[in-house]
Amino acid sequence: MDKLYVIKIGGNIIDDEAKLASFLESFAAIEEKKILVHGGGKLATRMAEKLGVEQQLVDGRRITDAETLKIVTMVYAGFINKNVVAHLQANNCNAIGLCGADADVILAHKRKHPVLDYGFVGDVDAINTDIIRTLLDKNITLVFAPITHDQQGQLLNTNADTIAQEIAKALSHLYSVELVYSFEKSGVLMDAEDDSTVIPQINPSFYQQLKTRNKIFAGMIPKLDNAFAALQSGVGKVIIGKAEELQQLLDGTAGTSIIHE
Amino acid sequence: MDKLYVIKIGGNIIDDEAKLASFLESFAAIEEKKILVHGGGKLATRMAEKLGVEQQLVDGRRITDAETLKIVTMVYAGFINKNVVAHLQANNCNAIGLCGADADVILAHKRKHPVLDYGFVGDVDAINTDIIRTLLDKNITLVFAPITHDQQGQLLNTNADTIAQEIAKALSHLYSVELVYSFEKSGVLMDAEDDSTVIPQINPSFYQQLKTRNKIFAGMIPKLDNAFAALQSGVGKVIIGKAEELQQLLDGTAGTSIIHE
Repeated sequence: MDKLYVIKIGGNIIDDEAKLASFLESFAAIEEKKILVHGGGKLATRMAEKLGVEQQLVDGRRITDAETLKIVTMVYAGFINKNVVAHLQANNCNAIGLCGADADVILAHKRKHPVLDYGFVGDVDAINTDIIRTLLDKNITLVFAPITHDQQGQLLNTNADTIAQEIAKALSHLYSVELVYSFEKSGVLMDAEDDSTVIPQINPSFYQQLKTRNKIFAGMIPKLDNAFAALQSGVGKVIIGKAEELQQLLDGTAGTSIIHE
Repeated sequence: MDKLYVIKIGGNIIDDEAKLASFLESFAAIEEKKILVHGGGKLATRMAEKLGVEQQLVDGRRITDAETLKIVTMVYAGFINKNVVAHLQANNCNAIGLCGADADVILAHKRKHPVLDYGFVGDVDAINTDIIRTLLDKNITLVFAPITHDQQGQLLNTNADTIAQEIAKALSHLYSVELVYSFEKSGVLMDAEDDSTVIPQINPSFYQQLKTRNKIFAGMIPKLDNAFAALQSGVGKVIIGKAEELQQLLDGTAGTSIIHE
């Protein structure tokens, strides 16, 4: 099977024009088939402030009301997505920008919750691997904005980490997939305050040891649980590390690799 | 050759939620291969007002400065494009929304003008028919936002009528293309004030007669000149008429058909 990288780029990189340009240059240079999933960073929040749209918070959770959905659709699927694509084109990487409604590529449903109404937030139901494969086979790189749809005409705001993971899982039947979460940290750290304490590799039994010894920063646990779930669904490897070190992450000389036993 | 409709939808329809929904329902029902090109209507202007971005006018011409480009990219390629796609999906029409940077589908250059700097406005150089054909062959309908790129990383604001015409011309080597301009008027009128005076058919010699007798409303002349230029480049027919009558426009029972001699 061909190798395929599914790479999530974090919001802090999106917000920094120079870091983003440098990341996109490294990304464009990857010779294997590749998919980029981007979040939105602070641009949508700033746009909401400028437009006087107040962020709805319920129990500390952000709610996507109709006005917020409009803003994230504009900022994520319009401004960020199309600028990323134009930059990749300038780096000789033929890219296409999509949201989940495009070619029905990510079908979702509005989140159901017994108590809380998250608003127009989508949970992923299905990935249309056929169209993704057709585009990848034409050497086109896909760039996903974190917006999905419900096939009833409703766009839905969707977590970019989840989109990356669902795409990676769905495509692991067709490609040898590695899933990369690139952000501002150097990887999974032994000491959350010390960027030099990156753990190079974690397999399931070592993860259990680390958890038993309380060595994993609480905020990292859901990410790692998701990473192991992705491995169980067929993904070959999950890599977590610094966006500035993209090539080293793929080489295995930086970041943390989450691997099978 | 398969038939292909390239349909431009005018801004006044985009601005009217009920009219747009009804238009998209008729559009989705077209069984032949089809491409939709949309403009932006007043949404971008309203967004610019809300954000306090002043419209730059030089000699009565609108200039696309950097802030305006950001707004049109958000509104056209984000909000309008993705909502149109989601609505088409709800009408069982598998659509994909693109701007010119996506898959390098419309290459343009920043307009050069001896005196005036239009800002980030693009004139079209080339249409990538290969990717369009690949998508159409998979029964995917393409929805274009009027944003192009220059392959150097710059997005460019581009006239939607021109995009529709260039796509129709480029694809006329591969498909039997009909180009439809649908807007709020019933067609080319003998009396610009009277919507019942639609001219059903215009061929080149009749057009010359009408022009000689000053029977063509001045604002319509560039549209008609472009329509005849499209015919000369291989487009089979150009149809101008009311968006609400889309099916009748295609049947030839409404609107004005611009045809070969």
